Amino acid sequence: MNGMLKEDLQYNWHPYTQMEALISNPPLLIEKAQGIKLFSVDGNFYYDTISSWWCNIHGHCHPRIVEAVQQQISRLDHIMFAGFTHEPVIELSSRLAALTPKPLERLFYSDNGSTAVETALKMSVQYWKNTGQSQKNRFISLDRGYHGDTVGCMSVSGVDLFVQPFFPLMFHSLKAPSPYCYRCPESKTPSNCSMDCFNELEKLLCEHSETVAGIIIEPILMGAGGMLIYPADYVSKTARLAKEYNVHLILDEVAVAFGRVGEMFACQLCGVSPDFLCLSKGLTGGILPLAVTMTTREVFEAFLGPVGSGKTFYHGHTFTGNPIGCAAAIANLKIFEEEKSLENVKKIAARLNSEIEVFAGYEFVGDVRTIGTVLAIELVQNKTSGIPIPNGSEYMRKIYSTGLSNGIILRAIGNVIYLFLPVCTNENELSDILARTHAVMKLET
Amino acid sequence: MNGMLKEDLQYNWHPYTQMEALISNPPLLIEKAQGIKLFSVDGNFYYDTISSWWCNIHGHCHPRIVEAVQQQISRLDHIMFAGFTHEPVIELSSRLAALTPKPLERLFYSDNGSTAVETALKMSVQYWKNTGQSQKNRFISLDRGYHGDTVGCMSVSGVDLFVQPFFPLMFHSLKAPSPYCYRCPESKTPSNCSMDCFNELEKLLCEHSETVAGIIIEPILMGAGGMLIYPADYVSKTARLAKEYNVHLILDEVAVAFGRVGEMFACQLCGVSPDFLCLSKGLTGGILPLAVTMTTREVFEAFLGPVGSGKTFYHGHTFTGNPIGCAAAIANLKIFEEEKSLENVKKIAARLNSEIEVFAGYEFVGDVRTIGTVLAIELVQNKTSGIPIPNGSEYMRKIYSTGLSNGIILRAIGNVIYLFLPVCTNENELSDILARTHAVMKLET
Repeated sequence: MNGMLKEDLQYNWHPYTQMEALISNPPLLIEKAQGIKLFSVDGNFYYDTISSWWCNIHGHCHPRIVEAVQQQISRLDHIMFAGFTHEPVIELSSRLAALTPKPLERLFYSDNGSTAVETALKMSVQYWKNTGQSQKNRFISLDRGYHGDTVGCMSVSGVDLFVQPFFPLMFHSLKAPSPYCYRCPESKTPSNCSMDCFNELEKLLCEHSETVAGIIIEPILMGAGGMLIYPADYVSKTARLAKEYNVHLILDEVAVAFGRVGEMFACQLCGVSPDFLCLSKGLTGGILPLAVTMTTREVFEAFLGPVGSGKTFYHGHTFTGNPIGCAAAIANLKIFEEEKSLENVKKIAARLNSEIEVFAGYEFVGDVRTIGTVLAIELVQNKTSGIPIPNGSEYMRKIYSTGLSNGIILRAIGNVIYLFLPVCTNENELSDILARTHAVMKLET
Repeated sequence: MNGMLKEDLQYNWHPYTQMEALISNPPLLIEKAQGIKLFSVDGNFYYDTISSWWCNIHGHCHPRIVEAVQQQISRLDHIMFAGFTHEPVIELSSRLAALTPKPLERLFYSDNGSTAVETALKMSVQYWKNTGQSQKNRFISLDRGYHGDTVGCMSVSGVDLFVQPFFPLMFHSLKAPSPYCYRCPESKTPSNCSMDCFNELEKLLCEHSETVAGIIIEPILMGAGGMLIYPADYVSKTARLAKEYNVHLILDEVAVAFGRVGEMFACQLCGVSPDFLCLSKGLTGGILPLAVTMTTREVFEAFLGPVGSGKTFYHGHTFTGNPIGCAAAIANLKIFEEEKSLENVKKIAARLNSEIEVFAGYEFVGDVRTIGTVLAIELVQNKTSGIPIPNGSEYMRKIYSTGLSNGIILRAIGNVIYLFLPVCTNENELSDILARTHAVMKLET
């Protein structure tokens, strides 16, 4: 084994990884990344088919982003964001405020998706406290929702595999069933769907809104819960209900923002303006940690008062508003304009859409769903029963390794494999990726 | 007002900041940083006397770090750290393992101090679960401890100002009194201290160790709790007791590591090897978000098992092990060798130490304490009563603004002002900073 890899196995603890399994299946040692390809030291390349965990937007080492970072770091690397400010963070805030639905005008920066969500949860709770309704301090979330791994985020997440050992640390949140269309609890299909699954959410609100601060959801696409794609109507109905019952709507767009689902932000696709919008992953084009929680004037103003009034939001992280991350994020937004990235997403989406029937034809495929640059394939033991192929089974692992031998990354979530493509993926690359995906499916089914 | 500043006030929500107060006192717009100076657009400069929130190590835009980042981003910007790895993260891990006490050999990366602490708390809880002692799931911490702002971190923090609105979200932790020597609860002085304050911690352990997963402390220097400096013996006694009572010792060195207190890591100063060591802030030299939680082989091995065994640590963040941050961190460590930074810290420490008596002579100074590059001055209404000057009072704000007019940043924590200097601060700069600090003290007392 490569000496570097040996050291990796000796020192590093990889995320979401059973490290014992890694000894026989060491990680790939990547030395270079360019466009949507990763190059390993042993001379192979891999299409970054899951955008390096859903974050890469315009490909790797995009010259515009590289240049922005290189210039920024030689002038102003990092300064504290209390009592001080700088041009990159101001420009980024002003651009994001212009791009998002109007009531979102205040930006609180942090470093990753988890902290963006923690910020929203905390702001929501303190908003109600500051406005004299401190009994409103619980959250409603979805049973397959995923919002991050810190204690607050886990508490509003519903992927048991991730949170089960940590129940003693978590606060209780109210869980509604997910709009999991393929496994519709009401046995409806998209053609006769009347969104009955929504009733549970409404019931929770009706019974508990007095003590509820907010509802948190991933609009349109629930990632770690299994790449569940669900109707925009569900999101807009949730927004209406949140208003009606006087609770905040928190949209976690950490995975779906920046063109991934067809519009710059998923909330635009749903015609919804939330009280809180959480962004990270693709914010810097997927190259540096940066996150932001956007909120409204109404929320912001509830925190104004004399210094000792107890209304201040005492929250922050050292690298809040990091100039280098902001410079990368500005470049990311500029590329969207210059390269007409959203138009490219439409092309990708059309092509993925046209593949649904083909993928659905494979023997072990139960469901195929797609939106924007995302295509998810749910693998089942047989089509009629719909029983999932077990999580972490030999079969799923073989799909992954065959994918790698074919130069694509098919990292499963449970029984779901998926493509989550950079928005810059061009026609030729997409054709090649699809051909390789079919090659894997044919070999393994 | 500068148009940029107007936009800042229109869009940005600054951390730990009463935004209403900002309207009359807008933040300083910084356009450049070099060495230990920040340069504002209006032509002034400010010594970075608090290291941009305790993170800057070798000054701003250090050529070695600039070059490392510029090279890294043009080759490999970011890839997912599950199933993949890269040279910068391997080299960094190997270097950190060599620098820290021996049993610390496994590294789990994340993005900031909060997530480094959350990782340690979660690993500790799951360790006990994986080894059949799931009843051990509580934590002991100190009543003025500060470990970050996410829900898990707040739960083990003791600075009420920060956490009070969020009680409904937090889990309960057991709190021991802090070793706050100036306000010793036993009315002892350093000369007759027998560390009676330690008894409470011992009592908690004695009564609750069966249900306690770990103790978390900031060794030697408690930052946000008021820059409390306390004996290394307290830390080593805690370590002994943790072993005796079979609970983990978590050292939060987010603020104190990387030379700040005289050694590379505070645990070395105490002769202690913890079960978990949390690092962030200075890890990249203070220029990019990166964090790591280090742990032992014993902890690591408790997570090994078959994939479906439930032993896996299902935790991670998108930018875990970010290559650019790792490249900056390697450069940071190399500079320590090349510039003999720790020797410079000794010089700074000696000089600060020689100033204690002078600062103690000012009328409103109750206590002066110093370690490494840190000097803290506690301001009181009068020396005999020791009653603190109120938090956020006009007086404290005046100190801050007079500091700025003198080109230094004296951002108070409650009634404590402090210098928290970059380790690269040279003799001339230090003399100048001290002269400016005295000028402020003379004007204001």
